[in-house]
Amino acid sequence: MAGSFCTECGSPTELRVPEGDNRERAVCTSCGHIRYVNPNVVVGCIVEAGDQLLLCKRAIEPALGRWTFPAGYLECNESSPAGAARETLEESDAEVEILGLHAALDIPHISQLYMVYRARLVGTHFGPGEESSEVKLVDLDDIPWADLAFPSVATALRLYADDRAEGTHRSHMGTIQWNGQGSRFDIDQYDLLGHLAR
Amino acid sequence: MAGSFCTECGSPTELRVPEGDNRERAVCTSCGHIRYVNPNVVVGCIVEAGDQLLLCKRAIEPALGRWTFPAGYLECNESSPAGAARETLEESDAEVEILGLHAALDIPHISQLYMVYRARLVGTHFGPGEESSEVKLVDLDDIPWADLAFPSVATALRLYADDRAEGTHRSHMGTIQWNGQGSRFDIDQYDLLGHLAR
Repeated sequence: MAGSFCTECGSPTELRVPEGDNRERAVCTSCGHIRYVNPNVVVGCIVEAGDQLLLCKRAIEPALGRWTFPAGYLECNESSPAGAARETLEESDAEVEILGLHAALDIPHISQLYMVYRARLVGTHFGPGEESSEVKLVDLDDIPWADLAFPSVATALRLYADDRAEGTHRSHMGTIQWNGQGSRFDIDQYDLLGHLAR
Repeated sequence: MAGSFCTECGSPTELRVPEGDNRERAVCTSCGHIRYVNPNVVVGCIVEAGDQLLLCKRAIEPALGRWTFPAGYLECNESSPAGAARETLEESDAEVEILGLHAALDIPHISQLYMVYRARLVGTHFGPGEESSEVKLVDLDDIPWADLAFPSVATALRLYADDRAEGTHRSHMGTIQWNGQGSRFDIDQYDLLGHLAR
């Protein structure tokens, strides 16, 4: 995954624990450069338009044909709410105003941290970007739970729907743990103040 | 920063916008591999021991000799609260229980996202790890505001001290913007529900 050549001089790297470190890194056998590989931040928006939410049907793999809220990798020199708004524009041609942090969800088995924001559709325009085949507004009762793209999407939408049922908006944190059995996941969920809801 | 050689084959890379993308990436001139560089997540703990907080004096650059709460880069296959607890153990030899998310702070000009957790010292033991020259418990009134290591540290501690003054704990989100003038920073801060406090 990290590749086997040095980004600084092009020589082969080897996996070893650098001095003063406690994890294996790709270390250059020639110039000694250490390449660190770290988790990625995924940013996205649950977009509200009145009582409805904006969902995108994925036009690309993985999860082609399944539904998601707009989301993608945070870029350098970008804040996470700005990135969430950018991804929303790219995937659904929708301009949004960020309202708040809905959920910070760690997914350690794929080294991702999802930062999901609640946002409001500005105006009424939206439509499929290059990575979407269809974009639509859905009522909460019509969320296609069986056809969602990823566990992160299902988790964030479930937390959102539960909040809405209680007439509130909360900021959630949690960890999505793959339990080793196919596509089953366990969620460590935290409450409003971040206490683990055991 | 991204280096000029391909991690997959060791050939030179060039900076260009790949097809279907809208940003320059390091693309291999030989095998075509695209290297993505994305922001890093920094995880840390504001550790409570009764009414006091645990602070570390940095033994390494940058900000050698200045004070911080324990924090460092999130590692692959690690959740952000687990990473925050690990960094705390490494830098201050302190075992902690994570209590909740204190603040998610974007720092786009250095492509970092800080995830700062509130934690409780388990037991009474602590001491300097390899990256700290001193670790101590301080009263809120004795936080060395003029000698803190980074704007992220000062921001997170200021939000924490304000919460404590109000007798509450909140989860904050915000963006630390370098305003282009030396070491001055502007903070876009959000309130409990994530609304921008204008």
